[in-house]
Amino acid sequence: MKKYLVEFIGTFFLIFTIGCTVISPGAGAMAPLAIGASLMVMIFAGGHVSGGHFNPAVSLAARIRGKLSGADLIPYWLAQFAAAAVAAWAMHFIKLPNAAVPFAIGWKAALLAEFLFTFALAWVVLNTATAKGTAGNSFYGLAIGMTVMTGAYAVGGVSGGAFNPAVAVGAILMGLQTWDNLWVFLVGNLGGGAVAALTYKLVNGDE
Amino acid sequence: MKKYLVEFIGTFFLIFTIGCTVISPGAGAMAPLAIGASLMVMIFAGGHVSGGHFNPAVSLAARIRGKLSGADLIPYWLAQFAAAAVAAWAMHFIKLPNAAVPFAIGWKAALLAEFLFTFALAWVVLNTATAKGTAGNSFYGLAIGMTVMTGAYAVGGVSGGAFNPAVAVGAILMGLQTWDNLWVFLVGNLGGGAVAALTYKLVNGDE
Amino acid sequence: MKKYLVEFIGTFFLIFTIGCTVISPGAGAMAPLAIGASLMVMIFAGGHVSGGHFNPAVSLAARIRGKLSGADLIPYWLAQFAAAAVAAWAMHFIKLPNAAVPFAIGWKAALLAEFLFTFALAWVVLNTATAKGTAGNSFYGLAIGMTVMTGAYAVGGVSGGAFNPAVAVGAILMGLQTWDNLWVFLVGNLGGGAVAALTYKLVNGDE
Amino acid sequence: MKKYLVEFIGTFFLIFTIGCTVISPGAGAMAPLAIGASLMVMIFAGGHVSGGHFNPAVSLAARIRGKLSGADLIPYWLAQFAAAAVAAWAMHFIKLPNAAVPFAIGWKAALLAEFLFTFALAWVVLNTATAKGTAGNSFYGLAIGMTVMTGAYAVGGVSGGAFNPAVAVGAILMGLQTWDNLWVFLVGNLGGGAVAALTYKLVNGDE
Repeated sequence: MKKYLVEFIGTFFLIFTIGCTVISPGAGAMAPLAIGASLMVMIFAGGHVSGGHFNPAVSLAARIRGKLSGADLIPYWLAQFAAAAVAAWAMHFIKLPNAAVPFAIGWKAALLAEFLFTFALAWVVLNTATAKGTAGNSFYGLAIGMTVMTGAYAVGGVSGGAFNPAVAVGAILMGLQTWDNLWVFLVGNLGGGAVAALTYKLVNGDE
Repeated sequence: MKKYLVEFIGTFFLIFTIGCTVISPGAGAMAPLAIGASLMVMIFAGGHVSGGHFNPAVSLAARIRGKLSGADLIPYWLAQFAAAAVAAWAMHFIKLPNAAVPFAIGWKAALLAEFLFTFALAWVVLNTATAKGTAGNSFYGLAIGMTVMTGAYAVGGVSGGAFNPAVAVGAILMGLQTWDNLWVFLVGNLGGGAVAALTYKLVNGDE
Repeated sequence: MKKYLVEFIGTFFLIFTIGCTVISPGAGAMAPLAIGASLMVMIFAGGHVSGGHFNPAVSLAARIRGKLSGADLIPYWLAQFAAAAVAAWAMHFIKLPNAAVPFAIGWKAALLAEFLFTFALAWVVLNTATAKGTAGNSFYGLAIGMTVMTGAYAVGGVSGGAFNPAVAVGAILMGLQTWDNLWVFLVGNLGGGAVAALTYKLVNGDE
Repeated sequence: MKKYLVEFIGTFFLIFTIGCTVISPGAGAMAPLAIGASLMVMIFAGGHVSGGHFNPAVSLAARIRGKLSGADLIPYWLAQFAAAAVAAWAMHFIKLPNAAVPFAIGWKAALLAEFLFTFALAWVVLNTATAKGTAGNSFYGLAIGMTVMTGAYAVGGVSGGAFNPAVAVGAILMGLQTWDNLWVFLVGNLGGGAVAALTYKLVNGDE
C-alpha cells in the first residue's frame, strides 16, 4: 500500500504542475522546466519506496525489464490514473476550468513524437535507475525529469508532450486534450516504453 | 549557536533573492529559477551544519519526524524570522521600497496552493535529507530547491508562492504582501509541513 | 555492437532535439537548455555502455587520451553520422522541411567559436568522465551537457553552436546549414577535441 | 604550473562566456544561466587539479581557510587576471567591441550587492568543496555555479553581477565597465570572500 500511496503523490504533483503551468495564466516558456522539475523532485523523494514511476508506460517498461512484480502493475496503474483524476479536480480550485483549450494534433506526427520521447524516457529510467553499470548514482531523478523537459521543449508543439498515459488522461480531464485522441498516447507511450525495455535487455542482457 | 547562524545566513539569502528578483526591475520569468537556486545552494552549503531548513514549516516537519530537538525549534524559528527582517531591511539599499506592489490573493485558492506545495516541499526534504533509503545522496539540495522553483512557476500567480512563513513575513516587510493575509501562509505552510511529516512516518515508519 | 547502438541512440536524440527546438516553431530562447539537457540525459543513460560520446570530436579526444580503442573509432563515427541522417529524416514527419533556414556565418569568428567550445567540451568530458581525480562522480552528464548549453548561449549566434561534426552534418541535412561551411566544423571541432586531449595529458599525465 | 594552467582555462571560459552572452546580440534573459553553467562545468572539470577557484576573491578565501598555500596565491591571481585579458582579446574576433556599453552603477548599492553575493559565493565554495561534513559530494560545482547565477539574476541590474575581481577587470577590458568603478569590485569581492572565510572558520572550527 505504501508504494501505491507514493505513486499517487508523485503522479498527482506531476499532473497538477502540468495543469497549473500550461493553463493560462501559466508559466509560459518555462512550463517544461517546471514540469520536468516536478517529476525530478518526486522521483528523488519517492524513488526509494516505489521506484518513482508516476507513469503507466514506465511501469510497463519496469515490468518487462523485471523490476516490477506482475501483482503490482495494475495497482500502480490505478494509483497513477487516480492521481490524474484528483489533480484535475484540484485544478478547479486553482484556475477557471474554461481557461483550458484542447490542443489540436496531427496524429502521425504526434504518434511519432510520443513514441520517440517515451522511448527516450523509459530508456533513461531503466539505464539510470535499474542498471548495474550506474548503481548508486545520485543523478537518476535529474536525468529522468530533464528527459521530460527536453521532450516538452522539442515536441510539445507537436503532440502536447505527454509521454505518459496518466498525463494524457489528466490533460483530457482538465480540458487540454480530447478523448478521441487518447489512443495516440496509449499506443505511442506504451509502445515506446515496451520497445525501450526490449532495447535495454538487448544492450544490458539479463543482469 | 552555530546552527542558528547558518539558518540565519541561508534564510537571509533566500528572502533577499526573492526581493531582488520579484521587485521591479527584477528577473522576470526567471525569478523562480533564481529563487529555487538560492535555496539549493544554501542547503548544499549549510545542510551539514543545521540541516538547512531556512523555513519554519520545514523545521516543524523535521521536529515531528524526530530530526530536530524540541529545544531547537523556537531558536530555529527566531533565526529564520530575524533573517526575514534583515533581508527586508537590506532591500532598502538595493531597490526603492515603493517599487514593490502587494500581491492580491483569493484565500481559498491561495490556501490550497500553499498547503499543497508546502506539503511537497516538506515531503521532498524528509525523503531526500532524512530517509535511510536515500542516505549519502548528492541530490538533496537540488531536489529541495527545485521543488520551490516548481511551486513558484505552478502557483506563484495564485498565492505568490511562499511555501514558507518566514518568506511570507519577509514579503510583507518588503511590501509584496499584507499582514491581513499572513494567516493563509501560517495555516497553509505549517499545515502542509505537518501533514507531510505524518505521511512520511506512515510510509517510512520509525527508522 | 551494443556500444554502437547506444552511440546511435544518444546521437539521434541529440540531433532530433536540435532540429525540433531550432526549426520554427521551436523552443525559442530555451532551445540551448533543451539541447544541453538532451545530451546530459543520454550520457547519463548510455555512458556506462559506450562512454556516451555522441560526437566524433569527443571520440577523437577519447582515442588520443587512450580511452577508446583504435578499432572502435571508425564504427563510433559511422554510428554518429548515421544517427544524424536518421534524425534529419525523422524531422520530415515532425516539421515542414522548408521551415528551416540556413544559418549564415563569418568563417573566422565561427572557426574560433567552434574550436574554443569544442575544446571546452572535450576538456570537460575527459576530466569528468575519464580522470582518476573525479572517479565515481555523479555529475559527468550534467557537466558535459551544460557545456554544450553554455556554448550554444554564448556563440550560437556566431557559428550556430554545433561543437560536433555529426551535429553539423545533421544541421545540413535538415536545411539549417550548408555543405560549403562543413569544413569550418570539421576543422574547428576535431581540432578543439585534439588540443583538449593533449592539454588533458599535459595536466593529468599518463594515469 | 599545471594548477595555474587549469585556473587560466577555467577563468578564460567564465569571462569569455560573460562577454559573449552579455554583449549584444547576446543571450538576453538566459545570460545568467549560461554564465553560472560555465563556472559549474569548469569547476567540475578542473577542481580536482587546482581547486577550481577561477576568482581572486575565492582564492583569498581558500588562503584564509588554509586550503591554498601562501606561495600559490599570487600565481593564482596572475593566472586569473591573465585569463581576463585573453578573454577580452578573444572577444574582438567574436563580437564588435563597440557593441559593449559600460554599465552605470550607484556605488553604495553596488558595493553591498557585490559584498553580499561574493560572501555567498565563498561561503558555498568553502562549505561544499573544503568541509569535512560534505566530503566526497558530487554537487560542489552545481552549488557554486548556481550561486553566481542566482546573484546575477538578483543583483545583475544593481552592480552588473561580477562577484569576482578578474571578471570585473575582464568586463572593463571588454567595455562593459569602467576603471574608475574597479575599487567597488575589489573592496566588495575581496571583503566578501574574507568575511566568508572567517565565518566558515567560526562555524566549522579548525578541521
